[in-house]
Amino acid sequence: DQMMEQIVIIGGVAAGLKSAAKIRRGAPDAQITVVEKGDLISYGACGLPYYVSGDVDSLQQLMSSSSGALRNPDFFKNVKNINVLTKTEAIRINRTTKTVTVRNRETAAESALPYDQLVIATGASPIRPPIPGIDLKNIHQLWHPDDAQAVRQGLEQGRFSRAVILGAGLVGMEMAEALSRWKSDVTVVEMKDQLFPAFMDEEIAAAVAKYAAGQGIKLLTGETVTEFRGDADGAVREVVTSRQVLPTDLVILAAGARPNVELARTAGLVIGSSGAIAVDDHLRTSDPSIYAGGDCVENTHRVSGAKVFAPMGSTANKHGRIIGENICGGDTTFHGVLGTVVVKILDLNAGKTGLTERDAKAAGFQCLSVMIGGHDRPHYMPNAKPLTIKLIVDAGNRRLLGMQAFGEGDVAKRVDLIASVLTFGGTIDDLFDIDLGYAPPYSSPIDLAAVAANAAMNKLAGHLKGLSPQEVRKKLASCPGTVFLDVRSSDEYKQVCLDRCENLCHIPLGQLRSRLSEMNKDDEIIAFCKISLRGYEAALILEGEGFTNVKVMEGGLNAWPYETCHGQAPPATAEKK
Amino acid sequence: DQMMEQIVIIGGVAAGLKSAAKIRRGAPDAQITVVEKGDLISYGACGLPYYVSGDVDSLQQLMSSSSGALRNPDFFKNVKNINVLTKTEAIRINRTTKTVTVRNRETAAESALPYDQLVIATGASPIRPPIPGIDLKNIHQLWHPDDAQAVRQGLEQGRFSRAVILGAGLVGMEMAEALSRWKSDVTVVEMKDQLFPAFMDEEIAAAVAKYAAGQGIKLLTGETVTEFRGDADGAVREVVTSRQVLPTDLVILAAGARPNVELARTAGLVIGSSGAIAVDDHLRTSDPSIYAGGDCVENTHRVSGAKVFAPMGSTANKHGRIIGENICGGDTTFHGVLGTVVVKILDLNAGKTGLTERDAKAAGFQCLSVMIGGHDRPHYMPNAKPLTIKLIVDAGNRRLLGMQAFGEGDVAKRVDLIASVLTFGGTIDDLFDIDLGYAPPYSSPIDLAAVAANAAMNKLAGHLKGLSPQEVRKKLASCPGTVFLDVRSSDEYKQVCLDRCENLCHIPLGQLRSRLSEMNKDDEIIAFCKISLRGYEAALILEGEGFTNVKVMEGGLNAWPYETCHGQAPPATAEKK
Repeated sequence: DQMMEQIVIIGGVAAGLKSAAKIRRGAPDAQITVVEKGDLISYGACGLPYYVSGDVDSLQQLMSSSSGALRNPDFFKNVKNINVLTKTEAIRINRTTKTVTVRNRETAAESALPYDQLVIATGASPIRPPIPGIDLKNIHQLWHPDDAQAVRQGLEQGRFSRAVILGAGLVGMEMAEALSRWKSDVTVVEMKDQLFPAFMDEEIAAAVAKYAAGQGIKLLTGETVTEFRGDADGAVREVVTSRQVLPTDLVILAAGARPNVELARTAGLVIGSSGAIAVDDHLRTSDPSIYAGGDCVENTHRVSGAKVFAPMGSTANKHGRIIGENICGGDTTFHGVLGTVVVKILDLNAGKTGLTERDAKAAGFQCLSVMIGGHDRPHYMPNAKPLTIKLIVDAGNRRLLGMQAFGEGDVAKRVDLIASVLTFGGTIDDLFDIDLGYAPPYSSPIDLAAVAANAAMNKLAGHLKGLSPQEVRKKLASCPGTVFLDVRSSDEYKQVCLDRCENLCHIPLGQLRSRLSEMNKDDEIIAFCKISLRGYEAALILEGEGFTNVKVMEGGLNAWPYETCHGQAPPATAEKK
Repeated sequence: DQMMEQIVIIGGVAAGLKSAAKIRRGAPDAQITVVEKGDLISYGACGLPYYVSGDVDSLQQLMSSSSGALRNPDFFKNVKNINVLTKTEAIRINRTTKTVTVRNRETAAESALPYDQLVIATGASPIRPPIPGIDLKNIHQLWHPDDAQAVRQGLEQGRFSRAVILGAGLVGMEMAEALSRWKSDVTVVEMKDQLFPAFMDEEIAAAVAKYAAGQGIKLLTGETVTEFRGDADGAVREVVTSRQVLPTDLVILAAGARPNVELARTAGLVIGSSGAIAVDDHLRTSDPSIYAGGDCVENTHRVSGAKVFAPMGSTANKHGRIIGENICGGDTTFHGVLGTVVVKILDLNAGKTGLTERDAKAAGFQCLSVMIGGHDRPHYMPNAKPLTIKLIVDAGNRRLLGMQAFGEGDVAKRVDLIASVLTFGGTIDDLFDIDLGYAPPYSSPIDLAAVAANAAMNKLAGHLKGLSPQEVRKKLASCPGTVFLDVRSSDEYKQVCLDRCENLCHIPLGQLRSRLSEMNKDDEIIAFCKISLRGYEAALILEGEGFTNVKVMEGGLNAWPYETCHGQAPPATAEKK
């Protein structure tokens, strides 16, 4: 009889509480008990960097509903009739007797909670690398509000003028923003050889890193931390890396997270290949009376079909809802994730959904990528900002596989749009066809996402022969016969240009048809401009005039993450203007 | 032989020039001639209100590329090798001889241009209602840059302190914003009985109108203009309507547009039921050598399948590309439009895609609508702004049919997202499932679009019994037994509440479970709060406690477009706090 049903939920953050609320809606008489190891429930952990930065005034706000009610156990009892036990750790699941043994962390008293259905929502924990000195003072993980509080206090007191962050992932870079807003001198140390190693292709990561460096955030890649050294008070003062010693006042550990699966593993539930709890598409574990959701379970990637560990607050909330519906007799399935990410670093936005080019190739897709630049709105609007979009496309069936974007422009909007296209398995043709909203305050007549789709079509048809920045860089270094054709205006050229190269040729687009004789028809020519729209026009002109080997540098100088020159006088070929 | 092909394009704005450029790319040797009646080409007409407002400094910017090159005939000749003849009117198409007769508007000289393939991109023209006095000075249509120039000049000189706008559509309301930015006293007169009559449901339009009124933009609906009266200098001074006489210094005519089809009609081409030129899905007219695109053709609505006249710069650009590809031997189809609209009125954003509820019902859909309110980002972020979303859903197969949204929050992002879902024929379940980007600077863990999908699911399942503001208003007027249950905090209640009604009952949500005895279990109870999330919680509590007739006012007070009280003392039932 569902009326008397006992539901136990282990974990009082996103997935746990969401499933509890959903069960209450579907089963007004069920007994619902949530056990939470920590002292707090339902806090917006993703908001912690914004408390540290000062965007959010108080931690209370992160734990309140939008109407200002504090989401504490009393709130859940009064409003939802849900019992929440904090400081209560689930230490054992007995699947035969269907009980969870819990221990009160203050009294150490143990008791057994019987369940008809159980939800495991134990979340994930930050990785704490076994580095000597890691227990020194002023080394924090941004996981619990207490850490955020301690960091913000130190910043307010002016104690953290230098900071080292371990890990250039989401939390690491969000904290880099937060600390640099307080004028801290921030250095990010990343073991892997690029920023955002988990979810961005190298050239996009390099462009984002270049922006961050321009804002004073130092990024050291391919460098590991070997030791923390403290002062007489036991406070961290130096970070020793594989290459150097970094003086510091504060260390943020942001080296990723691991799913909390021990309870499930000990209970004999199946753990997936990703290391997280395996669940079916109803979010049921290998025991039909036990559901699991949130950061502790593994997800299916909707594009590749692979099992992935992809902890995300948005996914956890969806899990909670689906578990709640299924526990109340529903038949609701979860179709997986796209690994969607959006992240802000000061005024730069970056994002990704679907597969990276690297992952798509590793998954065996015959893929093509294209990168284009432009503005997020008509260039004449004062709020227009630059944006670069990369699409990864299945070259065989034209299906979109993924996208990445960065720029001061509105990245998040295009990420959501393309997440939707990926959800439906759409092609670049579908993307181009979508009747997107157009008005100058918001977007251009052909949105940059559609321009990117168009560029992918042109590339598939052989009309656009694009090279990535890495490919161009290689040619700069090793192809003495290649002509690098910059078709921007002379003013633009004087401000910034590709780093010195003997074969740099500057001809503004409007003069190109009359200056064809300056190049040889069989030279390899790589055309570009600021965003490579004029570069593409130039390539079309040259091809129309019988040039045989013309390419375009994708994304133009806006997306060029490598060396540039400033204020150089134009080389000889450009003087004829 | 395609090498020698002669292409003539009639119309030098979006569709015409885009098709010309695309043809040049696909057919480097074709002879391409564009004839344009006016003196300018390729100007961003949609940007004119933003020139008037002062957002855009000069008209030049609207006619330039993003790199600053003026897109004039020289530009098209030099860069794209396209001949553009301005001030040249196409006056006759001879389909037998395959020639277009054109007349130079300065010299009146006529000549015949032979074509192998012809593109008609004659656009649309603003409707000029036959109202006495319409030729007075300072009456402008915002169609040509000259009009925008004249209006801005008058504003700069302080001559237009009062303005009357005819028509509360897109251009009318964009101009209302532009003029009110100059502190003009703006009155919009709309013949129909609501704002945005062509594309918004009444309650959404009413909420937007309420916002505009709060910003000082007066809106008179159901009122027709019968005469313009001028002063001794022939300048307009009064607008006479069916109800009153409005003194004014400036009149903007924004009563919609009609497709320019006379040339096509005279040539015997088929005109569609919408009044625009009929084309097939390759954008070919009834003559296989003649394509047509842009504002002069009719489109297929992707949701209803109906033929519609839906002029939009974004669609025109797509048409141009598709025509260009097909003329170059391609086989590219256009799948239609969603009637997507986004519009900014000062700090308010509004938008729509797909069918309105009214249109969906008229098209025979058994549809359900739901309206929800919330924030566009986590409420604790300083840039979080309110947003209300309405979804229209096919109650039979759960397919999305349309959405509308308004608020200071990011409407455009959700419009594009849902335009994508509509393009793929997705359901509310699909929408909820999309792995959208989540990070506090951009969005909440469950985006409001997904919350709306969830609310639609709850409504379809019978868990949410929602009433629209209109339905609640009717009950306020005529149902003495209905209880209107406001579950906001006392502070919120004191600031603003539903207009006086004997059965208004105020019980903050947190007190509801302990104050159930204040209501009868069989009363009709309509619960609400600011956005009706707490209102929904309240309904669930009451239903769980055996109340039999509980409903929720959808969208809450944020979406309530009618009368409210300010600063009233709470009625007796609320004093017990």
